[in-house]
Amino acid sequence: MSIAPKIFGLTCLTLVLACSPPGDSAPQSESAPLDEAWSNPLPSWNDGDAKQRILDFVAAVTNPASPYFVPAGKRIATFDNDGTLWAENPLYFQLLFAADRVRSMADEHPEWSAEQPFKAILEDDREALEKMGHAELGQILAATHAGITAEEFSTIARGWLDTARHPRFDRPFDEIIYQPMLEVLSFLRANGFKTFIVSGGGIEFIRTFSLDAYGIPKDQVIGSSIETEFRVEGDRTFLMRLPELHFADDKEGKPVAINRYIGQRPIAAFGNSDGDLAMLQYAAGGDGAKLMVLVHHDDAEREYAYDRESMIGRLDRGLDEADRWGITVVSMKDDWRRIFPWED
Amino acid sequence: MSIAPKIFGLTCLTLVLACSPPGDSAPQSESAPLDEAWSNPLPSWNDGDAKQRILDFVAAVTNPASPYFVPAGKRIATFDNDGTLWAENPLYFQLLFAADRVRSMADEHPEWSAEQPFKAILEDDREALEKMGHAELGQILAATHAGITAEEFSTIARGWLDTARHPRFDRPFDEIIYQPMLEVLSFLRANGFKTFIVSGGGIEFIRTFSLDAYGIPKDQVIGSSIETEFRVEGDRTFLMRLPELHFADDKEGKPVAINRYIGQRPIAAFGNSDGDLAMLQYAAGGDGAKLMVLVHHDDAEREYAYDRESMIGRLDRGLDEADRWGITVVSMKDDWRRIFPWED
Repeated sequence: MSIAPKIFGLTCLTLVLACSPPGDSAPQSESAPLDEAWSNPLPSWNDGDAKQRILDFVAAVTNPASPYFVPAGKRIATFDNDGTLWAENPLYFQLLFAADRVRSMADEHPEWSAEQPFKAILEDDREALEKMGHAELGQILAATHAGITAEEFSTIARGWLDTARHPRFDRPFDEIIYQPMLEVLSFLRANGFKTFIVSGGGIEFIRTFSLDAYGIPKDQVIGSSIETEFRVEGDRTFLMRLPELHFADDKEGKPVAINRYIGQRPIAAFGNSDGDLAMLQYAAGGDGAKLMVLVHHDDAEREYAYDRESMIGRLDRGLDEADRWGITVVSMKDDWRRIFPWED
Repeated sequence: MSIAPKIFGLTCLTLVLACSPPGDSAPQSESAPLDEAWSNPLPSWNDGDAKQRILDFVAAVTNPASPYFVPAGKRIATFDNDGTLWAENPLYFQLLFAADRVRSMADEHPEWSAEQPFKAILEDDREALEKMGHAELGQILAATHAGITAEEFSTIARGWLDTARHPRFDRPFDEIIYQPMLEVLSFLRANGFKTFIVSGGGIEFIRTFSLDAYGIPKDQVIGSSIETEFRVEGDRTFLMRLPELHFADDKEGKPVAINRYIGQRPIAAFGNSDGDLAMLQYAAGGDGAKLMVLVHHDDAEREYAYDRESMIGRLDRGLDEADRWGITVVSMKDDWRRIFPWED
């Protein structure tokens, strides 16, 4: 039952209670008109080195006359999710979901009113929450993510996304996504790339919104996973989710999972934290043209600013090693004209 | 180092030596002209219940006016490989590869001339081979499939497929594939299905030929896998294959892997042995239209005949439970007009 530490690398749930109560969801933003997509495929990126590197890379690998040409079947691009495609503050969104789920399950579990760590969440006991360690976080994830079928979990997670709202931006969590990255995803796909998510978050959680939010189908989502068991009851067959970690898709686990799920080395990889460095090194080790990008959260005004000291999405070694591995560091403040799809 | 038993469920390598020496490879067969593909999408299938069930199923799920309509993104079809897409006699082809690899590695391992189980393979010692158990098979797979990088393994496996020949049909192993199943794959894809391999065989082995042989890209291949480790040596990054089983994609493991890799229940599933029954039950448990198929090897003249008593690809419980789960049992003898692409 040690799910949490490896998935989230976070020792307390202090910020869980910052999550506001459920509200209505709003429609997804619309994409840019087709003609603009062709003439200016990255309209939310300011002109500069980062944008130019992306454009040059795509031009090189798609031009059959280029020495860097890559056939379409090998145009694999991998994207971290938390902090790269959607935000991760005030806390990884999946942990906010877990805390909301503890609250919504409390009626079925009267014992939780006297049992930690559940009591702390239900009572908004910040002192107790601050003392929480890996074991407690594991208990919360086991109680909220296991003991139900895969299909039941998807329905529950999707229901949360349809009702919960981000505490700062007051919108559904699956709208707190980065418009510049949506443009990169579309631009790559329009150029024959297959785009994958490779996240430390839970694979089944991300699959509930990946297609609508990012245009990425379920089978192109890779993430951390718990064990499941196939069961037959009469004519009913299903997968039961067990409270046991199967695979932590973080750090050195990311290249391992990429090989296991995709079967080839990506030529483009995007991340934002030290947990993505191994994935970027894996891409960097390939022959031919490759593109490695780290999104640097340096814009407290429009989003959040955090890096070397952050408990969430720490980016420390990645900044030190960016030059050595040819990684492009994107400044959200300077390189992104717009952050979210619903902004003007 | 107990790779073999779970992957192959086979206790001896007796038949390994039936494999003939390497020869030249021949070109892939060509597919039928486009107009025939539309008017008669399954030309190698004889008219009958099996063919009709496939046609009716595809018509029902693709017709928006049908109560059984399924949107394209949910048209997931899964296929076993050994015995379903390609043959598995006289022995699973991957074991023939392993034995050939022992022979080709013998110069680097002079100790093998005195060490079982390698000695038995090198000397064609049928008595010793017949006594081989799981531990010995595990030793062979560890020696031949691990201790190299993922990319090195792919090159070696692909090289074997380019030179080795099937002992009976005297053609490269990746041509010993079933023409009627190639037509099913094409027909499903032409109707908006995404086709996946879900095999008990090794995932990286199958990925070396899945695209050329079946039109299935590497990231749509699911199989058994060994552990790998991400390593950085200077500027070189790679995945080292370790002699340790990660996941046995057989029996109840197949639905587990389908959920893990694909993230949704298939609406069509094809297999040929008891190892595929759980996958077919998983498809059968879904709502709406679904198609479950077992290929019955009952044609000794054109291919092989085996079922309830076979050590390889045993089909026993599957035959007993076919009716209960609505599984269509395909007779290779009666339902298939042609077996292999290179036949007239």
